[in-house]
Amino acid sequence: MPHADPKSGKKWVGVCMTPALVGQYPIKGNIVVVIDVLRATTSMCVAFDHGVKSIVPVLNIEDAQPYKDKGYLSAGERGGEQVEGFDFGNSPYSFMDKKLKGKNLVMTTTNGTKALHESLKYDPKEVLIGSFANITVLCEYLTQKKENVLLLCAGYQDMVNLEDTIFAGAVVRRLRGTFELYEDGALVAETMFRIANRRKRYFLRNSSHYNRVVEKLKIQSDVKYALRRDTHPVVPRLEGEKLVRVK
Amino acid sequence: MPHADPKSGKKWVGVCMTPALVGQYPIKGNIVVVIDVLRATTSMCVAFDHGVKSIVPVLNIEDAQPYKDKGYLSAGERGGEQVEGFDFGNSPYSFMDKKLKGKNLVMTTTNGTKALHESLKYDPKEVLIGSFANITVLCEYLTQKKENVLLLCAGYQDMVNLEDTIFAGAVVRRLRGTFELYEDGALVAETMFRIANRRKRYFLRNSSHYNRVVEKLKIQSDVKYALRRDTHPVVPRLEGEKLVRVK
Repeated sequence: MPHADPKSGKKWVGVCMTPALVGQYPIKGNIVVVIDVLRATTSMCVAFDHGVKSIVPVLNIEDAQPYKDKGYLSAGERGGEQVEGFDFGNSPYSFMDKKLKGKNLVMTTTNGTKALHESLKYDPKEVLIGSFANITVLCEYLTQKKENVLLLCAGYQDMVNLEDTIFAGAVVRRLRGTFELYEDGALVAETMFRIANRRKRYFLRNSSHYNRVVEKLKIQSDVKYALRRDTHPVVPRLEGEKLVRVK
Repeated sequence: MPHADPKSGKKWVGVCMTPALVGQYPIKGNIVVVIDVLRATTSMCVAFDHGVKSIVPVLNIEDAQPYKDKGYLSAGERGGEQVEGFDFGNSPYSFMDKKLKGKNLVMTTTNGTKALHESLKYDPKEVLIGSFANITVLCEYLTQKKENVLLLCAGYQDMVNLEDTIFAGAVVRRLRGTFELYEDGALVAETMFRIANRRKRYFLRNSSHYNRVVEKLKIQSDVKYALRRDTHPVVPRLEGEKLVRVK
């Protein structure tokens, strides 16, 4: 079935390609999965898999200060460099670190945090974090729940981006058996994944983000890592202002 | 080149997948092409090819009244039926009519008119109408101009829809040689077109719009017609509140 039919009783899965469109989707009482594959949601999964107790995502460097004052570890990057006075950058590799174990972390991200804050305005039942690093455990979790699922791509400055769309499509592909698709966004994402799956890195090399950031920052290894599946099988969920691990 | 590099001096072509995102794109001084393949922009091309002098697109049935009072012909459909007291419905076939010749027409459309009004807020140099019916002449026109081009999909209630995305992708495919792609939206649309092109009607049958409207209204023949290329080689452009034919 190509679109959600409320009479079918089936759950639906939708794909919202940028935070600017989130108000068009029925979110109240449903589950939102925030997706920012390069690199925020990937790095969050790495951090939880390395024992971090909680992560508070904030927009700006200044917003991190009150948490740092409370003794939180801090992660932030601007222009490819780790922010001065912060403990971690934004690379998934930087979170493979024993000193995270049992600690609270504040992390500055732009697109990912914006997506998360936007979704909260519409009263979702749960907000989860998605990336290739946790795709299987995430999909299992979603399948076991009763709620509809909106996959919310962080995108780039409220425009569509390729890597988040492709990941959303990968999730749609896996949920298709038990979920209906909500509107054409889900179909577009799934098709993009199907095409990209054959030659994912080649495909990403055509993306704007890749050209804007990746080549400049020499983070090809981060991208390669962010496209690997099930490297960090955790399910981070928002509780109040904090992300915590629930699986 | 996968994304627009202002230093290259090349024009860019971008795809905005719904009117809700139009504010994210640089529009001032550029050309906007409004796309509402099923069925508004297709029907407009048919009407111009049958000699209509101008078309005023309006949102609501009530908005059409002042124009009707001035003697305009009127086109409008709600729930699959031609609006009572209107001269035409919304099917491309209904505009294959000699009585349009030299007349002014007011046409109610929802998604298409919204897209058009949204784009006007940002001061575009020109606003054009696109559909498979005029794709070649439209692309030739765009190629000859100096301006960047934003392809604005009318979508469905501010969400992505498949048929407009596919058409936008078809235009990107043709312009790729002389234009750069602006952000990933253009790449997504082009990829969708590439896939859909092999089996377009099958693909559309999976779209939400198809299932919502087409099957219910028995307008399969309209869809088939809307996917045919170059049936009506006209270029409609907005002049003030009216669309007129410039090619």
